[in-house]
Parts: sequence; C-alpha cells; structure tokens
Amino acid sequence: MNAPVKPLTLPKKDRFDIPDGVLYLDGNSLGVLPKGAAERAARTITQEWGGELIKAWNTAGWMALPQVVGDRIASLIGAPEGSVATGDTLSIKVYQAVAAGLKMRPDRKVILSDTGNFPTDLYMVEGLIKTIGKDYELRTVAPEAVADAICEDVAVVMLTQVDYRTGRMHDMAALTKAAHAAGAVMIWDLAHSAGAVPVDLAGCHCEFAVGCSYKYLNGGPGAPAFIYCRPDLVETVEPALAGWLGHDAPFAMEMNYRPAMSTERLRIGTPSIVQLSILDEALNAFEGVTMDEIRAASIRLSERFIQEVEARCPMLVLASPRNPDNRGSQVSFAFENGYEAIQALIARGVIGDFRAPNIMRFGFTPLYLDETDVVKAAEILEGIMASEAWKDPKYAVRARVT
Amino acid sequence: MNAPVKPLTLPKKDRFDIPDGVLYLDGNSLGVLPKGAAERAARTITQEWGGELIKAWNTAGWMALPQVVGDRIASLIGAPEGSVATGDTLSIKVYQAVAAGLKMRPDRKVILSDTGNFPTDLYMVEGLIKTIGKDYELRTVAPEAVADAICEDVAVVMLTQVDYRTGRMHDMAALTKAAHAAGAVMIWDLAHSAGAVPVDLAGCHCEFAVGCSYKYLNGGPGAPAFIYCRPDLVETVEPALAGWLGHDAPFAMEMNYRPAMSTERLRIGTPSIVQLSILDEALNAFEGVTMDEIRAASIRLSERFIQEVEARCPMLVLASPRNPDNRGSQVSFAFENGYEAIQALIARGVIGDFRAPNIMRFGFTPLYLDETDVVKAAEILEGIMASEAWKDPKYAVRARVT
Repeated sequence: MNAPVKPLTLPKKDRFDIPDGVLYLDGNSLGVLPKGAAERAARTITQEWGGELIKAWNTAGWMALPQVVGDRIASLIGAPEGSVATGDTLSIKVYQAVAAGLKMRPDRKVILSDTGNFPTDLYMVEGLIKTIGKDYELRTVAPEAVADAICEDVAVVMLTQVDYRTGRMHDMAALTKAAHAAGAVMIWDLAHSAGAVPVDLAGCHCEFAVGCSYKYLNGGPGAPAFIYCRPDLVETVEPALAGWLGHDAPFAMEMNYRPAMSTERLRIGTPSIVQLSILDEALNAFEGVTMDEIRAASIRLSERFIQEVEARCPMLVLASPRNPDNRGSQVSFAFENGYEAIQALIARGVIGDFRAPNIMRFGFTPLYLDETDVVKAAEILEGIMASEAWKDPKYAVRARVT
Repeated sequence: MNAPVKPLTLPKKDRFDIPDGVLYLDGNSLGVLPKGAAERAARTITQEWGGELIKAWNTAGWMALPQVVGDRIASLIGAPEGSVATGDTLSIKVYQAVAAGLKMRPDRKVILSDTGNFPTDLYMVEGLIKTIGKDYELRTVAPEAVADAICEDVAVVMLTQVDYRTGRMHDMAALTKAAHAAGAVMIWDLAHSAGAVPVDLAGCHCEFAVGCSYKYLNGGPGAPAFIYCRPDLVETVEPALAGWLGHDAPFAMEMNYRPAMSTERLRIGTPSIVQLSILDEALNAFEGVTMDEIRAASIRLSERFIQEVEARCPMLVLASPRNPDNRGSQVSFAFENGYEAIQALIARGVIGDFRAPNIMRFGFTPLYLDETDVVKAAEILEGIMASEAWKDPKYAVRARVT
C-alpha cells in the first residue's frame, strides 16, 4: 500500500490578486494584495465605523483586534498566545524593546548590533541614546563577527535575523545562547523572517522580538508592527512609551501610569483599526499551511532561481549565502548597474528591487510563487543582461523609492 | 440695497453617511464616516496596492501622502505649509514633542501640565522621565492654576487646549506668552481642537503642537496623528524617535542618522497608507468652509443644547464652562448615574459618551449637526431623565469602551 499522497498546499495563488503579467519577487518589501482584503476594509469602514460609530469599539471587536492579530502572528513565530502586541511601526517597537532591555541591565552600557542591520533599527537606538543622554554606546560589527563581539559589557544584543540586503540569516538559537551566556538581553528583529522562515521564539528564549507585517505577512502598506516579550519577563518591563492603551485600566482615566499585567503594556495609542482589519484578513492565507512547508518551498524556489540566474547571467554575482540554511527567503545579486537593471526588469513585469549600493534583491513568497514563475523571471533577466537593455538612459532616472 | 445673503455653508450633512435615526453627539471621540472614504480606501487597496504593488510608493503618491495630509491639517490650525508631519499616534507625537522640548532647555527639569489633561499625555511624560532616568519632574496643577505655576524652573509647559471631560478651553495665546516669558517651551495638544475651534499656531508662536485626526477631522478609527514644529526651530530639533523616514535620505541606507532639514524629521516609520488615504478624503469636508464659520455654528449648537437641557433636565449639572469663549466644541453634564444615562440615550439613538467619574459628554460637529438635531437630542434626554429610564439594570453593564 502506498503512503497517502500529501495534497499540494502551496502555492495558494488563488488567495491573492496579482496583476496579469506580473512576476512579483518583492514580497520582502511589500506583500501582494490578499483576496478579501478590500472587502474586509470596506466592511470595517462602512458597516463598523459608518454603522456602529463609537460603539464599534465594543460591538465590532475593535478593542480586542490588536490582541487577536497578535495571537495569529504569534502562531507563525513560535510564540505563545498573549505574548505578542501589535501596533505602531517597527521603528517604535525597536525603541520599546531596546529601552526595556537597557533597563534590565542597568550596569551595562553597550548595545551591540551588526553593520548589516536595517538602518532604522540603528537610528532608533541612536535616538534612544541621545534621549537618555548618558554614556551608552551603539557598537556595530560585521554580521559574521557578532558572536565574538558579545562580551560582558554588552547590555543588549539587537540583530535582524535576515539581512535586508543579502538575505544572510543569523542563527537565532546560537546567538541568543551566546548573548545569555554573557548576561546580555537578546532582541530579534523579524522583519524579513515573520511568515518567511520558521522562527521559534519560545525555544530560543530571547527576551524580545519585533517585526513588521507588510512584507511576508501581506498586511498592506503601513500595516501595524508587532512586539514579542518573553512571558516570564513582561511584568518587569518598564515601558518607555507608556501610552494609555498599555495601561491596566485605560478607561479609568487615572492620573498615573500603571501598566497592564500582560504584553498589552507594550501597546501605546489608539490602534489603526482599518490596517489591522486588513492584516487580520491577510493572515487567513497562512491557514492550513505550516511554516516548515513554506520554508521548504522557499528553498526550492530560491535554489532554482540561483541556478537559473548563474547559468544565464554570468555578470551577476551572488550576494547571498550559497547555503540555503544561512539564507532567508530572498536572493540577492551584486551588479554595478543593479539599479538600472532592476528598472528594466520592472518594465518587463518582473518586480524585484534595488538596495544601495549595488544589490538586486529578489524575494520568494511561496504562498503565491511557483517554480515556473522563478524560471520565467530568470529568463527575462537573462534577456536584459544579454541585450544590455539596462543601458537605456530611461532606467537611470531615480525615483524616491526603488 | 440689502447686503448679499451669505449662502448657508453648514451643515454639510450630505458629505457624511450617518445611520438613519442616529443623533451623533460623539464626534469628539470618533468622527462619523465621510462619504467617499470607503471608495478611497478601496482605490488605495485594490488599484494602488493591488495593481501597482511596490511601485505605488512612487506612482500613487504614497511617499508624499504624509506631507500632503500634513499641509491640509496645517491649513486648519493656523500653521504654515510644511510645518506639520503626520503619522503614528498622538501618544507618540506627545513623546516626540516633550523629548525635543526638554533638549531645548537642558538646565531645567520640570514639565508642567494640568490635572485635566488627557491621561496618555501624562503617561507618556512619565515614561519619558523614566527613560531619561534623571531628576525630571512632571508637575500637574489644576487647569485654572496653570498660569501662576509657570515659573523659571519649568522646561516645558504641555497642555491640551480643550479638556476632554469638561470642554474647558485654555487661552493658547496668553499661556504661550506666559510660558515664553518664563523661558519655557510650549506644547499644545489639539486633540479636541483641530477641526473644532480656530487655532492660530503661527500667531501664538508655540514651539510644538500635536493632535489626532479621528475626532473632529473624521479620519476614522486609528487615523494617524500629527505634530507641528515652529519652522524656525525645526533644524535644531534632535528627534528622540529617530526613524528612517525622518532621515534626510531614507533610501541611501546610511549607517548613521542624519535628520531631514524639515518637519519630515518628525516622521518615524512607514506611514499607514490606507488610514492616511481615508483621512485625506475626510479632509475634503472642510473645503469651502472656514474655521470661524465652524466655530460660530458650534457655539450656536452648544448654547442651544445647554439651554434645552437645563430647561428640561434639572438633575443634570453643567460641567462645562458657561461662557462659550472658554469652551471647546463639547458640552458636559455631571450626573451620578451618568454612565447608565448615556447607555439609555444610546439605546434611543442619541450617541454621546461617558467619562469617569460622572461626566456625560456631548460633542458638536457643525459639519453634520444642526439645531433640530440638538433639540431632538435634548428632548430624548428629557424623556430618559423624567422616566428614570436609566435605572433599568441593563444599562449598568459596563463595556470596555464607553
């Protein structure tokens, strides 16, 4: 008797609205539109806001929505129920986590990060240090030097698991262990991880994690961010951003801040209900599929893309780790005229993006991509490189967002 | 010859979708749904996000939208173009303003506010002080004692112009002058002012102002907040929340924060594009009407409401200033069983709200209310008070948001 055939669960292209003729390899920047998102927003706006008005905070479940969505994100990143708060932007969540982390190690003054981290993470720490106005230091080392740089003057290690340019992936378990061995607090930024690679927050035992939801979670432009706090610590966290919706009793309108006895203390102000509703709808696409299945499919897609591009485009140099175990769900190639080449690709319906100084970036979202897409994208890229189509001056005009 | 008859410009009920049978006196909590908002959101989601994907940041004007909306808000609060940044929540904007204000007066340690201020403003200052970890003091005095409490150890005076409970309105010009005479930085919270009363930020010369857009601006639940910085100061502001979209060149991905040379430095992370689009649409309702006209209509409505309620409901005690010059666009009555009375009112289609401990709160938005509405609301309130309908036990069940 044969083993039962596992039904094909990926991709789920029918769950998304992708324009005809577009091969979208930029889900690592902004995920595509999930079907149902527009209808959900319309319901939130017309029926709930329009029809229920202020009552909708109760009758339409708006008050609970940040926590509902937080729990759904938690299930994708190995975090227990109730441990993830949603809202604000990733920058704000970074600030909250680092400020709380520093409070946990009052005798230490160093925040350690790496030079591959996304700039806003570093900027937010700069702003925090200036605000505190004491002798804190943001120390950045090369990504591969992080493990050796964790020492006993480090208060907080703050890393983004997957490098936004190269896709290089840190070993969360090992680095968290190293941070804890040195007595440091560990903060992971999951911007390029959530919904893309399996994450085991509970298992790695880090203190905090943060992330955004408009990339692989497909929450749409400006979708809310999230923050995880290890449940055994949450009652010790002193929120730097002590907003009323993190208060234990927001509507008691007390004069003094008294934080909620849960992850809710990491909420701040009024949640962006329309964006949260869209995100809630977007998360439906993850139903019935495991992060391990997504990861396996992602590796198949990215391995195939590397193979095709290297065979077809000898002038492009792989900028991502070759070993898929060390790579997130994206593949990058270095090319001096990468900006122009990406514009030429976009003009031909293959949407990737460019990151300074010379990185052509391609994200692989197995929820809506298959190997045929990937091969076709490589073929079109080959055509551009072979014909030097990227030399057309029109592709050199720089828009603000690329 | 007669003077030309001024066309009636208010109310503009046809610009809003208000449910049949509802008299909405809660625009000071959540404004009603402007017509066109759902269609605008649908366009942003389906055509822009769905159709343009990542390109929409340029092609659909998403990158510029925070500034476009900021300029529209600026025009309603007496601020020049380019002086208002939008995004995040009001709590975050309070933090930015106070942190920046303290940096401007490094030798002073007191933040002065009043006990009528909305709790989150006070909480955010508490959080900021704990983050700085030095001997700062949040000093709160009664609203009427603020002027006398401004002295030379005050670094920042932070006040909400219109009290969220009583509607009592501070004199912005006089208090700003007093703050400046004592060498303090002045921050105004316009949560209950923007779109409700004329504000002259440029004229009052305050350093900062902040506000939200889901009350009288009708931006919807979770609409973005705003912050004003006096243009001559903006280049000296050190952002505490130093996010990448406040960077002078966000897409250069530099390692170090270098703030934009404009109010844009008060932006932080990725803007909530769907909510911003809705707000942009909502602001259309302010076209063709001046804030002075809105104010005149607001006073007519609130004066009439006070007169009707006092004549009909002797057990309700006016909790707002009697002189309309000292009152924003709301009227509050104190009543021991105010919570239950508001629930009974809501059940009869008159939506006001309750604020602890005993305040029945009624907001007047002249864009969609007229005197007939106000008289009808007072009649229904009279019926409830006369019949003691509020004693029905079903009205005592407390929901989380009231």
